[in-house]
Amino acid sequence: MAGISLRKARTIIRKALEHGRAEGMKPLSAVVLDDGGNPIAFERGDGASPGRYGIAHGKAYGAVMLGMGGRAQRDRAEAQAYFMAAANGVYGGAVVPVPGGVILRDARGRMLGAVGVTGDSSENDEAAALAGIAAAGGLTAEP
Amino acid sequence: MAGISLRKARTIIRKALEHGRAEGMKPLSAVVLDDGGNPIAFERGDGASPGRYGIAHGKAYGAVMLGMGGRAQRDRAEAQAYFMAAANGVYGGAVVPVPGGVILRDARGRMLGAVGVTGDSSENDEAAALAGIAAAGGLTAEP
Amino acid sequence: MAGISLRKARTIIRKALEHGRAEGMKPLSAVVLDDGGNPIAFERGDGASPGRYGIAHGKAYGAVMLGMGGRAQRDRAEAQAYFMAAANGVYGGAVVPVPGGVILRDARGRMLGAVGVTGDSSENDEAAALAGIAAAGGLTAEP
Amino acid sequence: MAGISLRKARTIIRKALEHGRAEGMKPLSAVVLDDGGNPIAFERGDGASPGRYGIAHGKAYGAVMLGMGGRAQRDRAEAQAYFMAAANGVYGGAVVPVPGGVILRDARGRMLGAVGVTGDSSENDEAAALAGIAAAGGLTAEP
Repeated sequence: MAGISLRKARTIIRKALEHGRAEGMKPLSAVVLDDGGNPIAFERGDGASPGRYGIAHGKAYGAVMLGMGGRAQRDRAEAQAYFMAAANGVYGGAVVPVPGGVILRDARGRMLGAVGVTGDSSENDEAAALAGIAAAGGLTAEP
Repeated sequence: MAGISLRKARTIIRKALEHGRAEGMKPLSAVVLDDGGNPIAFERGDGASPGRYGIAHGKAYGAVMLGMGGRAQRDRAEAQAYFMAAANGVYGGAVVPVPGGVILRDARGRMLGAVGVTGDSSENDEAAALAGIAAAGGLTAEP
Repeated sequence: MAGISLRKARTIIRKALEHGRAEGMKPLSAVVLDDGGNPIAFERGDGASPGRYGIAHGKAYGAVMLGMGGRAQRDRAEAQAYFMAAANGVYGGAVVPVPGGVILRDARGRMLGAVGVTGDSSENDEAAALAGIAAAGGLTAEP
Repeated sequence: MAGISLRKARTIIRKALEHGRAEGMKPLSAVVLDDGGNPIAFERGDGASPGRYGIAHGKAYGAVMLGMGGRAQRDRAEAQAYFMAAANGVYGGAVVPVPGGVILRDARGRMLGAVGVTGDSSENDEAAALAGIAAAGGLTAEP
């Protein structure tokens, strides 16, 4: 499959968490989902709060299901809160519409999945996701 | 029942998706529900994000259950957000109250079901739904 | 993507429903899901009971999520009922573990999605799914 | 807390998946939960079916929440199915009571979390979990 391999998902996550440590962020957690919204890999940094899986997942899950990065979801939530609330009802309440959810695309623009990072500010979470994706190579990130 | 046949539902969906392609919209997805809010047919255009069934369904489902088109639901959500949130609680979180959900009526005004289209802007989604309904013939559309 | 196109999904569904009519079965309904368990297309035959989407979906959804065809799921449910009950809890109660859910694979054995057919006996549903898959061509079916 | 570090969780998972490959098992997936039942890390082996997170999680989650390994849960499910069904209701349907869920304890017997492995037979899943735990060192496994 031309999807995200476990090896690539590991690299994205590892490098996102390393980026957070190098930048002095609070402990980060990161998930990689495939193009169907199903988890490939997740890691929670030591010292992160226990509920981080759900937030990381929710950032990436909304990105895959709606085909919108977390930044675009936040803008939509701020412009039309009831739409994102309704979308969340449709997706079982699992969507977290803020930056830190980043769509992964291949060179032709096809969606391969998404990364969700959480633990620090949404902007820092997003920066860590982008660092992880850049380190993995060969992927286009859509925040 | 003089409801929506599968043949008619197929035509509505096919023509709605074709309208989107002809107008250069993003890939659309469309569902047709019967007058009980149950799915007759659904299609997701190639390249659409994976979660489109829930959004298309939610637009049409709210239209049937409340007897209000998506446009009317959006107006109500903007005037009285808590009402639409409460209605969504009643309907299991499945309602997406924005344009693109269009009620189908027969010549005497009886509700036969609804169409839900998603993938581009809500206004474009609605235009595609109306194009599909017009192509099927014999139906009155209430957006 | 090397997945199931809407065009191919339409063919599978159309031919499954035609097979049912040709064999004198009760009205069938059929869904095609992608390899992430998300709907590509669905059709409910005229005269089928209104709740057929959920059953068709549940047959295909379990097949994708567990990587087991409906026949294998039924065998597991009969040998170890509590396991399938638990799996269903994990998947939100959406799994229907009986024949009629058929995994789609490409020539190399990679899962591309699944078909779910419902409306007649489970064995007839499965036969219709297999007929639809055969008509689409290029796919290996795992019932 | 002397709990399971991310580093240790990574090792358990990595070695469990390697054990599966070395033994010719189907592709495995594995999760490590902390002593509150919250995910620390998860990996899904390439080629595993998409829904493996929920099953892996369910094996480990039941183990933590009930303080019973998957083997003990299976025995209880076979002796008294309604008890495990009721427990599952209490825990949101998330429990999968079969071997492959293994409690992690420290030298004094205190529960530190649990591992959940899925993908092959329950017995093989459990063997892979035990191999991963042994490789990490310093932990007592309760299957």
